[in-house]
Amino acid sequence: MDIQDLLKGLAIKAESKIILLVIDGLGGLTMDGGTELEVAHLPNLDHLASISICGMLDPILPGITPGSGPAHLSLFGYDPLKYSIGRGVLEALGVDLPLLEGDLAARGNFATIDKDGKVVDRRAGRMSTERNRELCLLLDGMEIDGVKIITKCVKEHRLVVVFRGGDLSEELSDSDPQVIGVPPLDVRPLREEAMASSRLVNEFLNKAREILRDQVPANMVLLRGFSKTPVIPAFTDLYNVRAACIATYPMYRGIAKMIGMEILKSGQEIEDEFETLKGEFAKYDFFYLHIKRTDSMGEDGNFDGRVKTLEEIDRFIPKVMELEPDVLVVTGDHSTPSILRSHSWHPVPLLIRSRYCRVDGVRGFTEMECMRGGLGRLQSINLMSLILAHAMRLKKYGA
Amino acid sequence: MDIQDLLKGLAIKAESKIILLVIDGLGGLTMDGGTELEVAHLPNLDHLASISICGMLDPILPGITPGSGPAHLSLFGYDPLKYSIGRGVLEALGVDLPLLEGDLAARGNFATIDKDGKVVDRRAGRMSTERNRELCLLLDGMEIDGVKIITKCVKEHRLVVVFRGGDLSEELSDSDPQVIGVPPLDVRPLREEAMASSRLVNEFLNKAREILRDQVPANMVLLRGFSKTPVIPAFTDLYNVRAACIATYPMYRGIAKMIGMEILKSGQEIEDEFETLKGEFAKYDFFYLHIKRTDSMGEDGNFDGRVKTLEEIDRFIPKVMELEPDVLVVTGDHSTPSILRSHSWHPVPLLIRSRYCRVDGVRGFTEMECMRGGLGRLQSINLMSLILAHAMRLKKYGA
Repeated sequence: MDIQDLLKGLAIKAESKIILLVIDGLGGLTMDGGTELEVAHLPNLDHLASISICGMLDPILPGITPGSGPAHLSLFGYDPLKYSIGRGVLEALGVDLPLLEGDLAARGNFATIDKDGKVVDRRAGRMSTERNRELCLLLDGMEIDGVKIITKCVKEHRLVVVFRGGDLSEELSDSDPQVIGVPPLDVRPLREEAMASSRLVNEFLNKAREILRDQVPANMVLLRGFSKTPVIPAFTDLYNVRAACIATYPMYRGIAKMIGMEILKSGQEIEDEFETLKGEFAKYDFFYLHIKRTDSMGEDGNFDGRVKTLEEIDRFIPKVMELEPDVLVVTGDHSTPSILRSHSWHPVPLLIRSRYCRVDGVRGFTEMECMRGGLGRLQSINLMSLILAHAMRLKKYGA
Repeated sequence: MDIQDLLKGLAIKAESKIILLVIDGLGGLTMDGGTELEVAHLPNLDHLASISICGMLDPILPGITPGSGPAHLSLFGYDPLKYSIGRGVLEALGVDLPLLEGDLAARGNFATIDKDGKVVDRRAGRMSTERNRELCLLLDGMEIDGVKIITKCVKEHRLVVVFRGGDLSEELSDSDPQVIGVPPLDVRPLREEAMASSRLVNEFLNKAREILRDQVPANMVLLRGFSKTPVIPAFTDLYNVRAACIATYPMYRGIAKMIGMEILKSGQEIEDEFETLKGEFAKYDFFYLHIKRTDSMGEDGNFDGRVKTLEEIDRFIPKVMELEPDVLVVTGDHSTPSILRSHSWHPVPLLIRSRYCRVDGVRGFTEMECMRGGLGRLQSINLMSLILAHAMRLKKYGA
């Protein structure tokens, strides 16, 4: 029995309200005399930490740096080693392309091939997004053997291709050779069951080659990362909550939608997200509010930008407290230290505020303080049970 | 390989003595300016903590509130998600009804049905325990197809029914409809293998109806929570110890007996239990001493009563130390904060005193101090290996 089976049997309906504030890439490393959390002036988060129980979350396992997909699955209580969201599926979610059960998605590049069919530029000169959109329109809506093919522009030379209908398999090799000077690869079945799917994808690629024959700068499509929408139990069923997502980036909305959360409309600014939270607070039990900018700035190595964004978030904390949620959780999906310019394996600060938390004497919302918190060091996958417990939404296990 | 398989292969005989003092419902939450442990004057436990290594135990997993059954199994090193003690079995253990392997037990209510056979009172007016005993005598000792049926009074309208002999299955639905105005339900097999058992139980219920026909206020029995004694490895074999239990409540003695501990005679007071410990100390290696009152008072919301009980326990600690156990462990099976009036998910304070513990600078036996202890946050299922290690009772694993 895994944690989710256990929780599904114990979760009960209740009136309590939960807010899970995910500050993407929250944790950092020392640079310029402190971490971003230490350098930032965060009077409201520090106060909140002092009346909460705090700790550190390992997104997956100690030492493992997660992508956004597994990091979020884990926060939501799904075993990230059991459920995976493939790269094609993530790319589709990232451009707000709604996926249905059974859809097969792939990442694509518009590329340039020479007259012998050999790849000369895998990115077609990093063509414009505008031109990408035009080429996508040429390919979109094709139908082969009853399977509909959807193409959608991502950015520059990148597109996503979705195959819809029939019994498709994701056990397919890439057509993208990853090097130049060779022709695109045939897509091969990695298991016998994928034979028909490989024929279908190769037929699409041949048709795409014909359609794009005279286009510039891209006259071919390369595909990689074939993946199907995972069969995943609904968050709302598992935990017996009405759950809503507030996020500015399509990918996070996509993950939330995939597990059955309601997606709320919100503007692109942090202020807009908190405004939406307030406006919709009466209608749901569980709110997942995602803030992206802290992660993007970490990836840019923008320490000061991260500090400023944290300070901006801090100013909205009193407004969140005014809503009087029964449980307020502040954490991140993973760390993105500016000094590394990337996601990292470092555990993520966590605070849980509820009437029934065991306040632990932590004095501020920093990595160092949370390390000494009463929750100790937990895996993210254990967070949901703690949240539901503090919201008085779990029955006793056994007699 | 689970932890127990590992320990079974490593546990060796030794002369060392272990005392596991389980203060039921030990951990609390702040109320009246502190938790029960913080408000209580506990000079002996505080001193003990200062020369021990401390930590916090999650009974099952973070966020999960356990019943007494799984909480105790976990303390004794049994995976509570693998071994379960069903409700019928717990009820039988709770009235000191010794169970044999293969016994099928159910919780029962004496109920009132009308002339059409419909339930009009599921609790027969909460009849007296005295009358219950009389009716149990009418039903006790029946035999159907070689299966002996034992009925025993629990309290008021509640009884326990045990079916003994033959190949019985617990995969049975309840006969208790849980509502009035409908007849008792037929007991249905939940799996094919339970067909014969369902017929047997239904025949018992029909005979009970005949026997009770003219009785007042109860003329019927309703059954629920069918469960068999779990097949569970013996504590003594697994850990290579002569183990004894000192407990005032039947249910805890029942669990201890089920895993093969010797049950020691003791009076009902805390003082009596420590007296028994002293008197029997030479005869066993491992003593499980259970104190119930801290939990009962937590369930009553009696903060002051819990404080006083903790202070009473504290006065016996020097006597325990005089016995010079090689390992002395003080912990609980779960928290029962007075403010919640119920078991809770909060982790439980733990101290391990031994000549070979790594003393960690903890200054008192409270939730806050133990949170900062050197053991960190552990699952209860990991406690037995720590106990055996500190008692020099585990071989090295591997070369």
